[in-house]
Amino acid sequence: MRKDETTRSCLAVILAAGESTRMKSSLSKVLHPIGNRAMIAHVVDALAGAGITEVALVLGRDAEKVEAAARNPHVRAETYIQNERLGTAHAVLAARAAIEKGYDDVLVVFGDTPLLTPVPLQAARAGLAAGSDVVVVGFNAADPFGYGRLIVDNGELLAIREEKDASVEERAITYCNGGLMAIDGRKALALIDRIGNANVKGEYYLTDIVEVARASGGRATAVEAPEEELTGCNTRAELAFIERLWQQRRRTEMMLSGVSMIAPETVFLSHDTRIGRDVTIEPNVVFGPGVTVESGAVIHAFSHLEGAHVGAGATVGPFVRLRPGANLGAEAKVGNFCEVKKAEIGAGAKVNHLTYIGDAFIGAGSNIGAGTITCNYDGINKHETRIGAHAFIGSNSALVAPVTIGDGAYVASGSVITQDVPDDAVAFGRARQENKPERAKVIRERNAAIKAAKKKAAE
Amino acid sequence: MRKDETTRSCLAVILAAGESTRMKSSLSKVLHPIGNRAMIAHVVDALAGAGITEVALVLGRDAEKVEAAARNPHVRAETYIQNERLGTAHAVLAARAAIEKGYDDVLVVFGDTPLLTPVPLQAARAGLAAGSDVVVVGFNAADPFGYGRLIVDNGELLAIREEKDASVEERAITYCNGGLMAIDGRKALALIDRIGNANVKGEYYLTDIVEVARASGGRATAVEAPEEELTGCNTRAELAFIERLWQQRRRTEMMLSGVSMIAPETVFLSHDTRIGRDVTIEPNVVFGPGVTVESGAVIHAFSHLEGAHVGAGATVGPFVRLRPGANLGAEAKVGNFCEVKKAEIGAGAKVNHLTYIGDAFIGAGSNIGAGTITCNYDGINKHETRIGAHAFIGSNSALVAPVTIGDGAYVASGSVITQDVPDDAVAFGRARQENKPERAKVIRERNAAIKAAKKKAAE
Amino acid sequence: MRKDETTRSCLAVILAAGESTRMKSSLSKVLHPIGNRAMIAHVVDALAGAGITEVALVLGRDAEKVEAAARNPHVRAETYIQNERLGTAHAVLAARAAIEKGYDDVLVVFGDTPLLTPVPLQAARAGLAAGSDVVVVGFNAADPFGYGRLIVDNGELLAIREEKDASVEERAITYCNGGLMAIDGRKALALIDRIGNANVKGEYYLTDIVEVARASGGRATAVEAPEEELTGCNTRAELAFIERLWQQRRRTEMMLSGVSMIAPETVFLSHDTRIGRDVTIEPNVVFGPGVTVESGAVIHAFSHLEGAHVGAGATVGPFVRLRPGANLGAEAKVGNFCEVKKAEIGAGAKVNHLTYIGDAFIGAGSNIGAGTITCNYDGINKHETRIGAHAFIGSNSALVAPVTIGDGAYVASGSVITQDVPDDAVAFGRARQENKPERAKVIRERNAAIKAAKKKAAE
Repeated sequence: MRKDETTRSCLAVILAAGESTRMKSSLSKVLHPIGNRAMIAHVVDALAGAGITEVALVLGRDAEKVEAAARNPHVRAETYIQNERLGTAHAVLAARAAIEKGYDDVLVVFGDTPLLTPVPLQAARAGLAAGSDVVVVGFNAADPFGYGRLIVDNGELLAIREEKDASVEERAITYCNGGLMAIDGRKALALIDRIGNANVKGEYYLTDIVEVARASGGRATAVEAPEEELTGCNTRAELAFIERLWQQRRRTEMMLSGVSMIAPETVFLSHDTRIGRDVTIEPNVVFGPGVTVESGAVIHAFSHLEGAHVGAGATVGPFVRLRPGANLGAEAKVGNFCEVKKAEIGAGAKVNHLTYIGDAFIGAGSNIGAGTITCNYDGINKHETRIGAHAFIGSNSALVAPVTIGDGAYVASGSVITQDVPDDAVAFGRARQENKPERAKVIRERNAAIKAAKKKAAE
Repeated sequence: MRKDETTRSCLAVILAAGESTRMKSSLSKVLHPIGNRAMIAHVVDALAGAGITEVALVLGRDAEKVEAAARNPHVRAETYIQNERLGTAHAVLAARAAIEKGYDDVLVVFGDTPLLTPVPLQAARAGLAAGSDVVVVGFNAADPFGYGRLIVDNGELLAIREEKDASVEERAITYCNGGLMAIDGRKALALIDRIGNANVKGEYYLTDIVEVARASGGRATAVEAPEEELTGCNTRAELAFIERLWQQRRRTEMMLSGVSMIAPETVFLSHDTRIGRDVTIEPNVVFGPGVTVESGAVIHAFSHLEGAHVGAGATVGPFVRLRPGANLGAEAKVGNFCEVKKAEIGAGAKVNHLTYIGDAFIGAGSNIGAGTITCNYDGINKHETRIGAHAFIGSNSALVAPVTIGDGAYVASGSVITQDVPDDAVAFGRARQENKPERAKVIRERNAAIKAAKKKAAE
Repeated sequence: MRKDETTRSCLAVILAAGESTRMKSSLSKVLHPIGNRAMIAHVVDALAGAGITEVALVLGRDAEKVEAAARNPHVRAETYIQNERLGTAHAVLAARAAIEKGYDDVLVVFGDTPLLTPVPLQAARAGLAAGSDVVVVGFNAADPFGYGRLIVDNGELLAIREEKDASVEERAITYCNGGLMAIDGRKALALIDRIGNANVKGEYYLTDIVEVARASGGRATAVEAPEEELTGCNTRAELAFIERLWQQRRRTEMMLSGVSMIAPETVFLSHDTRIGRDVTIEPNVVFGPGVTVESGAVIHAFSHLEGAHVGAGATVGPFVRLRPGANLGAEAKVGNFCEVKKAEIGAGAKVNHLTYIGDAFIGAGSNIGAGTITCNYDGINKHETRIGAHAFIGSNSALVAPVTIGDGAYVASGSVITQDVPDDAVAFGRARQENKPERAKVIRERNAAIKAAKKKAAE
């Protein structure tokens, strides 16, 4: 009786040692983000989702950063450095010590395929469990040109034929090599060690394992996955293409779960965005990492949220920036040209126009007038502003922190508040107005004379 | 001599009683908006556009709200409640009392097809006028899988064949049932009453009317409509898809009428948006309901307009919010990070930076400085600000309403204005400046010490 | 021995005299912009890129504006007015005087094809150099309906067959006339003069030159170009389509050169946008003309830049407007709801929230608090604000220009600064705060009474 893929032990080797030359980047490509998360972290997520807990990272450039980005609480990862670039088979052998520990299954995956899900991983392992020595994950290519074709006959994978070596008939095959592969863990090293480099580039290609395995009487098969899941990334144009596919996937999931998006193609999600039912998202909204929106909230157009919590029934935007630590209570409103950072906005409170709220606490039902600024920074330290419940802050006020404004207090419009305001008190901090009759004419004449003089000087 | 479709009487039965389960919504799906207007209202518009004035609404969930959303000045609508969900034929029979009144034509349409235009409605009625008992509106499906195929022979519609019942040859047919149907009004009840429920789900399917009619010697035909017009909505992903098609239709109409859009796919229109010739709209502009833009105006990127009127040659944006009641005169300018609500901006007046204008009147040619705030709200009441013509409001001023500033008056920068300013007067409302030499060093040292102390305390 | 296309002299005739009726515009269509540059200027760029320096502009409507828009330092252009619209051959003859000067090659191009590159121009001229009298630039049409088909046999172009004259077999041809043409300059006038107008519209069609040339024993050939390059513009919907193709082309070039765009389809470039390597551009960014971004900078979502320079490693946005003359130093930051115009922001300086900086100089490392406004305009003249290095401007301050704030100086929050502040001084310009205990209750009651009275009056 064979072990099935849930009881079989498994090591996943992630190849991520490429130079990423075509990215023209100061970072390894697997560190570039998709959904605000490094590509390689998505790959590790897929492994974890498939129940795979042992990972060998084959790294080159930026190894420390990549190792950090690949960290995942459900996975034990060890790093192996590939110093020379001699092909994919050579890359896998960099993890020889890991493979030698002995696993039922060895999976080889690529660090630049962030759209991968657990499904093809499980399918490939099931192929091993069913008796194959090598299982290649293939896909039906919309345009097969340039891909290695999978030559399958009667359920057996005979070879992976490169474009240049393919006959006319073989070129018509659309079933192509997706790169991802599962290998019988007991035979993996022996098979890979026998791969040669007798080719134009003098490299060791992992794809040759199919012929190597068959030559020794082994069995190779293929399983199919959607082309999307196997999409790799070599340029920033491809990075943008993968981001687009990823965003489409997440948007559709959200809409099907009860979120309305008027123009989903203009809503940008992060890997950890959480949005409740009956939330409406208008066009052009960007979610950075760490955002939760509770049910019934409305996110108006042109909003940018990061590290923020939006309570049930709250209204955000248009033109709002919520920064890390923004925490909006139920039915709260944050309106146009407002920024909220590390601040609690109480239930039903309103911050509607041209306001900066940072390092603050605003009580339930309070109204913050247009143009209010919490002056939280003295150039060196940050200070807190505390506003009670049902307070009223007049427009264009500056609240110089640390400062506390009591429940039900009023701040007169245009005030600079430097001292605490008791509950139900009114605070004024503004100069008295003085009118100078007919003086505007004088000023206009003076300014016009200055302009005329400047013009004359310029001649 | 037969009556044609303009003299024949007609009842349209709108089926809108579905549970909308897959929308995962607290609202019936026909209330979800397309172009900021409930789906069902678009359907009623199409009926009105086809000259149909009598409507029977078959409703279930949210009946009162749906009835309200379906209101249309050109149409008389009566509501019939479908209490059980026993199929489309059963749904139509909920309106039995309406059909019994006697009409030449009975149209059956669906409340979730907001892209419908009058054309297929008229075509279907023309089919009745030409002697058919039943006229089904079909479409040529890009992908027919899952749709009922229209089996047409020699101009007669023989049957609507469901996917599961179709032969291989029938599955190759791309001409599919669009749902919409016209029935001879004198025979409609008799035909529908004869539809049975001998099927897996035990439901009464209106599509069976084709076979019922033919079995009794009647004639069924089909007329073709574009697939787009018949697109129905079952999920929020489909809602977004319909919105996209609707927006594309409206954008193209506008561009062909002389409006320039640099990136039309980023301009979001409402059902009642009106834009004049030679208007340029930059990328990323959202039009809420009730907006009119006169010819020659420019709407820069990142603008959000609702209930606003933009005069000829005016300039809006980038980053502008015009809210209901904003009324911009000819050649007026509202610039970045400005919000205008219920306010008239006179011809040629400028509100260019970081300003909130609410409940205000600004005269022609006035200049409102950066950061100006009309303080229109006292926490309970709203008050008005009136600014005359050719006035100059210095930057960062707060105008505490109710207040009036005269023609040609000046307000000094940074002032808080609480009293009226006469014509041509200058108003100051700010404190005198005082410099404290070398004091910044002291403050820096003190703040640095606080920081160091905090750090130590945290250790 | 023949001259090749680099030694042969060449005149390009640009046809741009159309009425542009379907544009429904107050401007000639060739003046409408693509990438913020008039369509015709793109065409002249392509000519210049192909080394062509002599241009004859055939103009009608808006001739002066078109002539100005077509100006290019590498090209000598003369204008010829076509007074009547009698077809494309008639249009070319408007430039008879130019052609008579005698050139080896005459190219005929259209002013409304801004996606044209030098490649097909060079290919067409190479055809002349190889002995053809007429070389037509064709394309393989995705949908050939409506285009003139190129009838090619054994390398010779026999005719351009219009849709209405084409046989069924000819209609199946997808190789179509792209409009652009090269003619032997010594024979051009003689050939064109022989084109007749015996057709329904009574117009002189340049396409007839193929048959005219062949009838006199000449040789016509065709060269292929991508359909995209030959796309012409007749409506504003087509203008938007061309803009889209142009943007896609530029975005892809940038990404391949090392610029990251999370959602390239939401980034809008101008013809002269320059962006360095390892720059990240978030979704929804609009580049007006004249922008340069140095390497390593980040442009966050919802930013609008025009005439600005962004230094290496600087951060812009989200929600930022950079206007002409904005010059950000290395590692500088301009944050949400800030506008910068004609101002230098020193290295590492921060302008992070709700601020207007105009006509200003800010020294390295200075911090400008939220809501700061440089009051640069007195209604007639603009004045400068100079802020030293490592200064600190407290939030919600108004700096009334002309004014100078020294190195290391502090401005207290909420101040109005009208006089210079020395180095390391602290400036206060705000009123002292006064609290009125329990007064808020009185105000609330009074305001509530006003509201009640209003309501009663309204009854």
